Amino acid sequence: MPRKVCVVVTARPSYSRIKSALTAISGHPDLELQLVVGGSALLHNYGNVSQDMKDDGFDIAARVYMVVEGENLITTAKTTGVALVELATLLDTLKPDVVVTVADRYETLATAIAASYMNIPVAHVQGGEVTGSIDEKVRHAVTKLSNLHFVSTDRAAERVIRMGEDPDTVFVTGCPSIDLATAVLKRPQLDFDPFTQYGGVGATFPLSDGYLVVLQHPVTTEYEKAWEQVSETLWAVHESGLPAFWFWPNVDAGSDGTSKGIRVFRETEPSSRIHFYRNMRSEDFLRLIFNTRCVVGNSSVGIRECAFLGVPVVNIGSRQAGRERGSNVIDVGHDRTSIQTAIHRQSEHGRYPPSHLYGDGTAGQRIAELLACRELTFEKRLTY
Amino acid sequence: MPRKVCVVVTARPSYSRIKSALTAISGHPDLELQLVVGGSALLHNYGNVSQDMKDDGFDIAARVYMVVEGENLITTAKTTGVALVELATLLDTLKPDVVVTVADRYETLATAIAASYMNIPVAHVQGGEVTGSIDEKVRHAVTKLSNLHFVSTDRAAERVIRMGEDPDTVFVTGCPSIDLATAVLKRPQLDFDPFTQYGGVGATFPLSDGYLVVLQHPVTTEYEKAWEQVSETLWAVHESGLPAFWFWPNVDAGSDGTSKGIRVFRETEPSSRIHFYRNMRSEDFLRLIFNTRCVVGNSSVGIRECAFLGVPVVNIGSRQAGRERGSNVIDVGHDRTSIQTAIHRQSEHGRYPPSHLYGDGTAGQRIAELLACRELTFEKRLTY
Amino acid sequence: MPRKVCVVVTARPSYSRIKSALTAISGHPDLELQLVVGGSALLHNYGNVSQDMKDDGFDIAARVYMVVEGENLITTAKTTGVALVELATLLDTLKPDVVVTVADRYETLATAIAASYMNIPVAHVQGGEVTGSIDEKVRHAVTKLSNLHFVSTDRAAERVIRMGEDPDTVFVTGCPSIDLATAVLKRPQLDFDPFTQYGGVGATFPLSDGYLVVLQHPVTTEYEKAWEQVSETLWAVHESGLPAFWFWPNVDAGSDGTSKGIRVFRETEPSSRIHFYRNMRSEDFLRLIFNTRCVVGNSSVGIRECAFLGVPVVNIGSRQAGRERGSNVIDVGHDRTSIQTAIHRQSEHGRYPPSHLYGDGTAGQRIAELLACRELTFEKRLTY
Amino acid sequence: MPRKVCVVVTARPSYSRIKSALTAISGHPDLELQLVVGGSALLHNYGNVSQDMKDDGFDIAARVYMVVEGENLITTAKTTGVALVELATLLDTLKPDVVVTVADRYETLATAIAASYMNIPVAHVQGGEVTGSIDEKVRHAVTKLSNLHFVSTDRAAERVIRMGEDPDTVFVTGCPSIDLATAVLKRPQLDFDPFTQYGGVGATFPLSDGYLVVLQHPVTTEYEKAWEQVSETLWAVHESGLPAFWFWPNVDAGSDGTSKGIRVFRETEPSSRIHFYRNMRSEDFLRLIFNTRCVVGNSSVGIRECAFLGVPVVNIGSRQAGRERGSNVIDVGHDRTSIQTAIHRQSEHGRYPPSHLYGDGTAGQRIAELLACRELTFEKRLTY
Repeated sequence: MPRKVCVVVTARPSYSRIKSALTAISGHPDLELQLVVGGSALLHNYGNVSQDMKDDGFDIAARVYMVVEGENLITTAKTTGVALVELATLLDTLKPDVVVTVADRYETLATAIAASYMNIPVAHVQGGEVTGSIDEKVRHAVTKLSNLHFVSTDRAAERVIRMGEDPDTVFVTGCPSIDLATAVLKRPQLDFDPFTQYGGVGATFPLSDGYLVVLQHPVTTEYEKAWEQVSETLWAVHESGLPAFWFWPNVDAGSDGTSKGIRVFRETEPSSRIHFYRNMRSEDFLRLIFNTRCVVGNSSVGIRECAFLGVPVVNIGSRQAGRERGSNVIDVGHDRTSIQTAIHRQSEHGRYPPSHLYGDGTAGQRIAELLACRELTFEKRLTY
Repeated sequence: MPRKVCVVVTARPSYSRIKSALTAISGHPDLELQLVVGGSALLHNYGNVSQDMKDDGFDIAARVYMVVEGENLITTAKTTGVALVELATLLDTLKPDVVVTVADRYETLATAIAASYMNIPVAHVQGGEVTGSIDEKVRHAVTKLSNLHFVSTDRAAERVIRMGEDPDTVFVTGCPSIDLATAVLKRPQLDFDPFTQYGGVGATFPLSDGYLVVLQHPVTTEYEKAWEQVSETLWAVHESGLPAFWFWPNVDAGSDGTSKGIRVFRETEPSSRIHFYRNMRSEDFLRLIFNTRCVVGNSSVGIRECAFLGVPVVNIGSRQAGRERGSNVIDVGHDRTSIQTAIHRQSEHGRYPPSHLYGDGTAGQRIAELLACRELTFEKRLTY
Repeated sequence: MPRKVCVVVTARPSYSRIKSALTAISGHPDLELQLVVGGSALLHNYGNVSQDMKDDGFDIAARVYMVVEGENLITTAKTTGVALVELATLLDTLKPDVVVTVADRYETLATAIAASYMNIPVAHVQGGEVTGSIDEKVRHAVTKLSNLHFVSTDRAAERVIRMGEDPDTVFVTGCPSIDLATAVLKRPQLDFDPFTQYGGVGATFPLSDGYLVVLQHPVTTEYEKAWEQVSETLWAVHESGLPAFWFWPNVDAGSDGTSKGIRVFRETEPSSRIHFYRNMRSEDFLRLIFNTRCVVGNSSVGIRECAFLGVPVVNIGSRQAGRERGSNVIDVGHDRTSIQTAIHRQSEHGRYPPSHLYGDGTAGQRIAELLACRELTFEKRLTY
Repeated sequence: MPRKVCVVVTARPSYSRIKSALTAISGHPDLELQLVVGGSALLHNYGNVSQDMKDDGFDIAARVYMVVEGENLITTAKTTGVALVELATLLDTLKPDVVVTVADRYETLATAIAASYMNIPVAHVQGGEVTGSIDEKVRHAVTKLSNLHFVSTDRAAERVIRMGEDPDTVFVTGCPSIDLATAVLKRPQLDFDPFTQYGGVGATFPLSDGYLVVLQHPVTTEYEKAWEQVSETLWAVHESGLPAFWFWPNVDAGSDGTSKGIRVFRETEPSSRIHFYRNMRSEDFLRLIFNTRCVVGNSSVGIRECAFLGVPVVNIGSRQAGRERGSNVIDVGHDRTSIQTAIHRQSEHGRYPPSHLYGDGTAGQRIAELLACRELTFEKRLTY
């Protein structure tokens, strides 16, 4: 009987980071995929990812609404609680042999807790990395709740082991997001019209003269600060002279402030050559960034996928602080002058040599193989 | 303005393990105590601890019902979720400067998560210890969510630091439960009649011939197994020839099976010299165990307080596996013959020399002092 | 394609009151039964009814733990909330064509609300009756949320219509609990040994000399009052000279006090000839009450099934106030003298002529037939 | 000691409908106001009403995030569940003598249930009216849970009584929203610049040539249908030749589709003379509609306040079906031609004579007075 592997996906970025593993799991003869979709992955405002999943041929075993609206600190905690209540009932119904949880979001933590209390082994993808903000606490807490660790880098593996995890349970698989990028590299040209294909709002412009791609998430829950920070980036991009594709932020404490900043900017500067999207299919998105002059913002895409693709990145603020990075990244603070200068430098520089820091494109396959053959246990003990 | 210290207490044992700190916090000029009571600490079936708190002079800032009934794996996970939802609202109302969470229960985890997401510094009491079961996962996950660590032993401190916590945030305060034991040692005689004072059900007997004290919690969530395990202990105690005080288990997955085992035994062997309690005030309980011939079961009381008091202990099964222990403990498996042999040996042996392994009686004071003077921050990063 | 009929059962009494309809629905060619089990129907302490359901051959589509422990006013409200959250997810998965909700409990209300908001037609069994306590508010609120009304009596139908419901949606089916009683009447003798078959605790006694059956639920949420009320009944029964079978109460605000009262009585009066049960299969239970000298307490069984079976009843207090009743009932207050006098009178009287007040034994069949053929709609409007 | 009156407000329209009562309660010597704010009243996307409350001088006793994001049928049910869990804890803390719940929203129902189970008397404002959609079920269910009924019209009072409520508990106070309108009538001129005062997005235009005001909520939960319905209205307004102020819809199942329809229209027809708002203070809003040529949409404001103010209304679709209305309303279906024709007729007609159908401006005072002097009880029984 195949092992039942339950994967909980709750946001667009998590989907990109696990998709190749989903494909490998559902294609593996000894595994059966139970795909659970929740959180912002179900919400129109955040680009209903569940539709993409269906288009990609995945069956959705269950969908769980869990986001308590408010996008602040309190509601983030509450969302984790609602997720936990729901996932407990769900795991009791699905009875998986192992649960896979991705990265460091609040739903990641809820998934790991529900499975742990229900004596279901937990496999964690992307543990052992170091960043700023609450994600840092959550990521390592999830490591302590997990029984299998599929990490992206050697440094990450070393950290997970130093935290007291049994080395026999830690595997450097690389990040599955790199698998997608590998596939895209085989046919990297921008073979679709982003304006007609994805709608969105704002300016249209020719792509031939070069363009920026911006992804900026709130790092702070102070409404005013999130607003101010996104405004600095908006003005820097506007004044860079390059048109830009801009992606709306995740549901998170502070995203309200970010959205407000964007809305106000759009009213103030209607002539700005920025086009806004809520979402895009991962492969198309990767083609879009492969062909950009520079990626701007604070998304981990700039650190991971862009390293592999050799795309120049202007990384703003503290959100990615501590994460290993390639030579393609320039770090700047939240002021428009520094951002603009760095954009200029990166868009002049052109593509960097690719780096295999976050994987070689086989992560999904390796994860599926390990889930199929490794002993599954829910008990563990600190190694020291 | 004094710092507001929110302490969440959700079970009788947690109260014993934090009580001296509560006293010290509420007496400290620079601290203001916000005592939140929840979980089984509010339930009659588990010996409404909140009444003891009032009797001890503490003001209760809020009480939160959070236990989803079922006492199995699913409801434990759900309870954690309900606790999280409730505590988020509560922390938003109380706005503490720091939250204190105790040990390794599910509510401990819910408290740490709620505070973490709400950018409130978390202080964890009793991290760094090693045991069996789900507690092991939860304890270390809470460590990764916490900003201050008040641990009981040097080994525990070492482990917390090795897990990547900043050594400047780790303090060997000893366990506050030892503080209570210290107070009791000053007047250790059994100065009350346990039968008339606390009611309970079952046999009465003279105390002068010696008696046992039994505390056995379910370690497994298999209903039948919890039943079988408690039955082995019941028969071993019954056949030891010594009368016994027996305390009902915590609300936990499996406690249903334990309760059932006790009920069936009582019907089968009505002449058994066992008296059953749901609860007892901590100080009286400590006097009761100080004067026992032997403590039997799998409670951490046998490992901590009994080490300090020099009380002989028969520790059954895996629940305390991995925890540092004094010479006062004999470990046995879940079979009645081994348990009975060990009871015999320990009740012949008499009291052991006291051990300061888990503290010297000043933990509460030290914790209050550290909460008053240490810098409070909610951000942190792995040290390696 | 058969209509999918989701029935939510959350307590032992609700199961008895819907069982014949479940049988009829699952046997109907145009209907498909989706049986959801939740609340105390899953709890050992309240006699895990879900096991009976399996023994009776029903497939359980989902089980939902929802009871927040505390058995007080706050936790009853919270339980309704947790039930609502869970049932919403569940109904989204099951996608029934109609939801059946039974009587007037908090889960009844949660079921009706979840279905209403999800545009699923609601069928309510046992609306239109009048009683005391919170049940009265809840029952009529459920009527206002329901689209089909399967009531027990003509008076009930009249009341539902006067409340503004379309007469075309109101059907006097009788109560399905009477169907079970009809079946039992065909072979009414006590063909099993209640002591060996069902365990329980307390005295054993010969059945040939006559016995009482007691069912008393808390009507008040004052802990002390529930305790006192059950004590009065306990002493009256004890002093009646007749042995008794006593059934533990439902999970409800106050059941804690009732349980406590029973426990204290048992310790005080160990020689009492009372045998306590948590639960019994409905058919066996009906045989037990058919052969009793008198049913004592405040259960609606005394009003419904006992009317049909002609069993003498001593109905205590206000819980059934307002409910239509047959000549078999004597009403008394919560004092032991009145109770004892009434017990004496009823046990002297012997069986009453049967009454068809609450149905003729065809309710389940009629309900299934109506669910199969009536138009299903979720919209409605006040008729005046 | 003054009676503690807890009022739960969860949405902007509810605030307008209870504000004058809040003022009267907080000014009454025998009453103490406990104002609880939750739901969309806390959300930026729906025009954070809690800020208005503070500006209006009200103290907020507690704020409760409860909206589960998704704006569909499932999340509406879940939101009700989360609200119930939270409000139970909150009412236990606040211990009010009576709870006031407004109109017919899901939070209205959660409030009534929480209070009912906690034996707190419930006062319901705006019962007894008849409309379409789920509101109809909820409104009457709340009536059955309530102990005091403060209704707007004689017809409403008659309906509440016919539903079985004690006539002594039913009071025709009028609707408090009319109180606000009365105040505005004393100084009705548009004394502020809506563009500079409230921001918003979209076109600006001179007010002197006349303008429309549009409020359209989704009545259906089919995403596509909500989209289509709002599009019809958008095009009708666009083609009417009059500029318009347009208010975004409530959080509700379907509001996602409505928002999407608006966004697409704005991109398609950027030259349209429509200005969009999320919110406006009630008094300013009333001045805006007093001076409009015509109110368009399906808000109850068109039925209530506009009747009193004599403002012409084009009421679209079934949302207000069944509600008593004045001569100022023309009802049309969801097609742009009918809407446009009706707009034309109404804007030609000019103001209608005022109607006191929904009150005379003293509702708030009367409600406060009744809350202060009426006997408060949580028990009740059907009158027939």
